[in-house]
Amino acid sequence: MPNSFPITERTRLVREAHRAVYDREAIYKIFDEAFVCHVGFAQEGQPFVIPTMFARIGDAIYFHGSAASRLLRGLSGGLPVCITATLTDGLVLARSIFNHSMNYRSVVALGTAILIDDPAEKLQALRAFTEKLIPGRWNHARQPNEKELKATSILKLPLTEVSAKVRTGDVEDDAGDYALPVWAGIIPTRLVAGPPVRDARCDVSIPAPDYAAHYHR
Amino acid sequence: MPNSFPITERTRLVREAHRAVYDREAIYKIFDEAFVCHVGFAQEGQPFVIPTMFARIGDAIYFHGSAASRLLRGLSGGLPVCITATLTDGLVLARSIFNHSMNYRSVVALGTAILIDDPAEKLQALRAFTEKLIPGRWNHARQPNEKELKATSILKLPLTEVSAKVRTGDVEDDAGDYALPVWAGIIPTRLVAGPPVRDARCDVSIPAPDYAAHYHR
Repeated sequence: MPNSFPITERTRLVREAHRAVYDREAIYKIFDEAFVCHVGFAQEGQPFVIPTMFARIGDAIYFHGSAASRLLRGLSGGLPVCITATLTDGLVLARSIFNHSMNYRSVVALGTAILIDDPAEKLQALRAFTEKLIPGRWNHARQPNEKELKATSILKLPLTEVSAKVRTGDVEDDAGDYALPVWAGIIPTRLVAGPPVRDARCDVSIPAPDYAAHYHR
Repeated sequence: MPNSFPITERTRLVREAHRAVYDREAIYKIFDEAFVCHVGFAQEGQPFVIPTMFARIGDAIYFHGSAASRLLRGLSGGLPVCITATLTDGLVLARSIFNHSMNYRSVVALGTAILIDDPAEKLQALRAFTEKLIPGRWNHARQPNEKELKATSILKLPLTEVSAKVRTGDVEDDAGDYALPVWAGIIPTRLVAGPPVRDARCDVSIPAPDYAAHYHR
């Protein structure tokens, strides 16, 4: 695989082109860090955008089709989708309102999603969903049985047409504004985990496993 | 305005219907807490999903069209869009893999977005973007000038067809799984802000304002 995604007419950034990223490794890191993605699809011209669990395996995204009964109805031959994942890293307080911004990393993948039928591939996807969010969990929980696997809709989007947009670093003000007596800077933001809360019906003799007790993103 | 959004064919939840929320106040709280929304639109059958800044003013969503030069091209008479905002509140570790889930609050708004031309309305939207993310900031920074306002694309989506989906609370396992010796519980997650980082070119004699020094979501 080449190290970068090709720039297509649909993935070329028109605005703020300096923030575009096509590097495969950088894009995969964004996908792998995001908790959920937003899946876009259209039905009779009306777009729908649904948040869902997902994971990357190699050069494809697998995502949960549970929210997407609408998606599946149109699926003969695959459904055009857009998968977007976004991480917000900070608020950018510039001296002018106009230059206020956010630090963020977002990735947009375009293509045609297909429904996965093979139980082994479904299982692999479920494992990826779980291990991505809670590394170590898969082997501790009861595995999916045949009925559950059948009840789970998994879709796959091969990653072929993908771009990311990333803003990092400092405030960027207009030259004439730097002299203004206005505080400027970044307020970093991040998603953090709190202490785990034991299920009311979970016997206290079962210790919280490390991946829960010391959950770390 | 009625207290709940009407349930339409497009906003009726088919799966997990007990998680559906149509209450206006509850839906507005989700919109108001989310940092970014994901805007979906379609072009020649291909959906696009773009993260962007937004704010609710009354019964409408205003959002930044900067990422969306594609959006604007098709805009005679308005563009069908879907605006989705998602908050992730926790990881749900069930005894079975199948019942693993997330606690989340997401809202989906369908409709037709229009471009805002009126400079006063644009200014009001920019103010809402800023004050939503950093309450108190608007009056401290240099206000947008005429040229900047012209360079800013703002779109508006009236909120008429909206639904939310919310999962809260405990693990839900199959009856037969509660006896398994598997730790179960919730790992809460939330977006937090770190200490503000002063811009390298911001004179240290300018104190960090309270809204930055003690930023709190």
